[in-house]
Amino acid sequence: MLIPLERRGGPDGKVPLARQIQLYLERLITQGLLAPGAKLPATRELARDLRVNRTTVAQAYEELVASGWAHAHVGQGTFVADPPVQGRGSAPVAPPRLDWAGLLSKRAQIASADARRRHAYGVTPRGDAGLISFAGGMPDSALFPTDAFRRVLNSVVRSEGRELLQYSHALGYRPLREYLAAYLLRFGVEARPEELLIVNGSQQGFDLVARTLLDPGDFVAIEQPSYPRAMQVFRAAGAELVPVPMAGDGIDVRYLERVFERQAPKLLYCQPTAHNPTGLTMSATSRQRLVTLAARYRVPVVEDGFDGTLYYGERPPAPLKALDRAGLVVYIGTFSKVLFPGVRLGFVVAPAELVERLELAKQLADIHTSPLLQAAVAHFCRRRLLERHQVKAAREYGRRRDALLEALGAHMPPGVTWTETRGGFSLLVTLPPTVDALALAPRALARGVAYTPGNAFFIDSGGEHCLRLSFSSVAADRVGEGVRRLADAVREAMSAPARPTAGAERDDPLV
Amino acid sequence: MLIPLERRGGPDGKVPLARQIQLYLERLITQGLLAPGAKLPATRELARDLRVNRTTVAQAYEELVASGWAHAHVGQGTFVADPPVQGRGSAPVAPPRLDWAGLLSKRAQIASADARRRHAYGVTPRGDAGLISFAGGMPDSALFPTDAFRRVLNSVVRSEGRELLQYSHALGYRPLREYLAAYLLRFGVEARPEELLIVNGSQQGFDLVARTLLDPGDFVAIEQPSYPRAMQVFRAAGAELVPVPMAGDGIDVRYLERVFERQAPKLLYCQPTAHNPTGLTMSATSRQRLVTLAARYRVPVVEDGFDGTLYYGERPPAPLKALDRAGLVVYIGTFSKVLFPGVRLGFVVAPAELVERLELAKQLADIHTSPLLQAAVAHFCRRRLLERHQVKAAREYGRRRDALLEALGAHMPPGVTWTETRGGFSLLVTLPPTVDALALAPRALARGVAYTPGNAFFIDSGGEHCLRLSFSSVAADRVGEGVRRLADAVREAMSAPARPTAGAERDDPLV
Repeated sequence: MLIPLERRGGPDGKVPLARQIQLYLERLITQGLLAPGAKLPATRELARDLRVNRTTVAQAYEELVASGWAHAHVGQGTFVADPPVQGRGSAPVAPPRLDWAGLLSKRAQIASADARRRHAYGVTPRGDAGLISFAGGMPDSALFPTDAFRRVLNSVVRSEGRELLQYSHALGYRPLREYLAAYLLRFGVEARPEELLIVNGSQQGFDLVARTLLDPGDFVAIEQPSYPRAMQVFRAAGAELVPVPMAGDGIDVRYLERVFERQAPKLLYCQPTAHNPTGLTMSATSRQRLVTLAARYRVPVVEDGFDGTLYYGERPPAPLKALDRAGLVVYIGTFSKVLFPGVRLGFVVAPAELVERLELAKQLADIHTSPLLQAAVAHFCRRRLLERHQVKAAREYGRRRDALLEALGAHMPPGVTWTETRGGFSLLVTLPPTVDALALAPRALARGVAYTPGNAFFIDSGGEHCLRLSFSSVAADRVGEGVRRLADAVREAMSAPARPTAGAERDDPLV
Repeated sequence: MLIPLERRGGPDGKVPLARQIQLYLERLITQGLLAPGAKLPATRELARDLRVNRTTVAQAYEELVASGWAHAHVGQGTFVADPPVQGRGSAPVAPPRLDWAGLLSKRAQIASADARRRHAYGVTPRGDAGLISFAGGMPDSALFPTDAFRRVLNSVVRSEGRELLQYSHALGYRPLREYLAAYLLRFGVEARPEELLIVNGSQQGFDLVARTLLDPGDFVAIEQPSYPRAMQVFRAAGAELVPVPMAGDGIDVRYLERVFERQAPKLLYCQPTAHNPTGLTMSATSRQRLVTLAARYRVPVVEDGFDGTLYYGERPPAPLKALDRAGLVVYIGTFSKVLFPGVRLGFVVAPAELVERLELAKQLADIHTSPLLQAAVAHFCRRRLLERHQVKAAREYGRRRDALLEALGAHMPPGVTWTETRGGFSLLVTLPPTVDALALAPRALARGVAYTPGNAFFIDSGGEHCLRLSFSSVAADRVGEGVRRLADAVREAMSAPARPTAGAERDDPLV
């Protein structure tokens, strides 16, 4: 620790060194720079750093302890105490601070505006044990194969640690790309390792595509409702979003043709399988029509391959990428849903020509993804541990989904409808036109149930009477009770509608 | 694996299912989609996927083996063989492909042009055992505390695995931010945890700052020479780089004042400590003048805190951030040099107002950094293992630096000068004006020594007669021989200068 010491005495005469050290540390503590519980440097260490006598430091520490700023544990050291209640008026006068808000780029201004709007949707308080939350959209960490992963991680560091902790290739760890190439063949997607780029979760895939293809003012066609973060990232790149409604189980291809014709979008973003928030899966026929249309109008398609293996019932048709003969589909996949989000691993499948450009963008963004996590996941998969986990997880999530559909049928009043989710983690409920989902949220919360209001999944307006229920994190035997509470809140709102209000701040990642 | 099967017979009559499967797999193998050594799905599995009889699959596999496309290992399965030599003319006709190059954003076009230019600097072939390479700028993986890190990693997954594999906060793992807050105090930098954002290495720090503050056409002042990837990321954001020369041991503050006055740059990027490529460290007086100047002109300063703890000899003065009273310095630090690059961990210290905006940019970029790696590094540091490693590493790198300075003095011909590196991994050599460093590189390589030509560290032109020597990856007892080879090449070039030529493609990350 560096403490500026006045050794020759200031204008008011010399302040003893011990006193100077004490006052400096007091300031750090009052300003929160040294947190309660933090350990102060050992006296010997600090004395060496400051080139003072060790007893000088010890004296300063004793004063800190005597005045309640710190406490000493014999043999362990001196620790910052909880700060005593302070009088006011003692804050030092700071010089004028730089006004950062005035310096923001256009992208940052767009992102800030979006964030403010988003905060209004968040109504999930943390730490309420009785709450049944259908908000969030994360996998259930209780199902994670944590221990199996630990063992694999331990073994890859043992065998390849040095290489995995060094700089590496921007495209990604080769065995992982090879594994993925073989894995994707199961779904009919043909990709050579050089057509694969490893990224930090699908979010980075969207971001790199946006950087590489979008200029401010470009149009991006996007199905509605859709995944909020994808909309945000395209918007922050300066693009204008063109909404395309869903028809039946996927994007309305006839409507899309008009958009292609009139607005010549730079790209289309869609989730044909296990769509978030609806859980719907597009039919094989619609997929073929979509790909044919995109090829005719030469519009790149960003296919969000969100948890395509988490389906319930009939296996979904092959991805758009598998039907793509013109090399215009960019498939973005992730391990966040089928394995765990914390490894932050996703992948982009695209023609080599585009992957080369995405790789440059990746190098500028963060050089490359941690080879350590890539290797751990690659070995985890090659030992077939992913497959084993997928079977188990899909079974459990399927149970929760069945419980949700059953409970909705049993408890919801007439006028309420919902999507028959076939995959992923959620479904979309539509309330009667008199009930606003955002206004309903605090009432539902008061009854002990949370969800995500539908607005979050629409570009500017829309979804006011919709809400997303994620069943992934609610145990099957709690689902019924959660839906009962929600149904009560809906019935109450149907008899006495409330005005829309802004919700509390959101703390969870919205996924 | 999904194989499209024609079950009813095509126009040419029915092709047996086994034959269809065989032909499909042959195509995957010839097109490189199934790599040599890849395991084919188990017959039972594929039969189930395709809803055919298991013997049908077995028959297809037997044909593949008989015709040399695959080989079978009893009890293990069927594997893809090395492909036999193929005749030409059998490639299927592909439909017209999308022309991605015509779709690139302005940013991507800038990044591509930069990459083409950069490739000319790369002259490091891989795999030559006799080569002594002063190129690259990575830490030596032989010094990594790999095993200690493995144990810590194992223990954090054991104790916090579930939480660490779930989604987490965008700012970063709180104990790591708390540790960093205390760590930075040692250098006089005061940061509350909410003034700290964890990022994927310092590169992501630069990128998030660029997104948040830069619009196309903005000026960015940058010292010359400088770190190439920082220049690239600001340029790819559309900024125009304004070069500021170095004077003595750091940026020329007088020159900088004229730049501030005339061009009102949006920000200044500099490396006051252990500057890459020169290894120089700015004096305390110049630092104070720089911060005062930036405050007067209200120009944000991005301080690259590149391996500030790896210094040799006198401890460097406090960072600019420690002198910053107006809240205009953004300090970007990294674990890549003092620990290892493969964890991809860095951090940004900035006023809370800016950190909030950087956090939004981070969420759009990749939601958050892997909590698992953050926790492992945090615990590694808290157990004082980082400090122990730092001492050991600085001692070893110091030995290599001493050996390099000594060898340069002993072997280099008159007219060659170099910087007296005081920290970091490298120094900059200046050749006589008749010798071009880029043209010299292949000659040096022929003699078994590699370096990075100086152009890489300058914006457009400049550095033609300079080269960077990184001593971090060369064992002390090899340094002398490397310099001797280089000196021979220089002497040869001084007597017979060569024309500049483009080098081979670079494979290493340039750091």
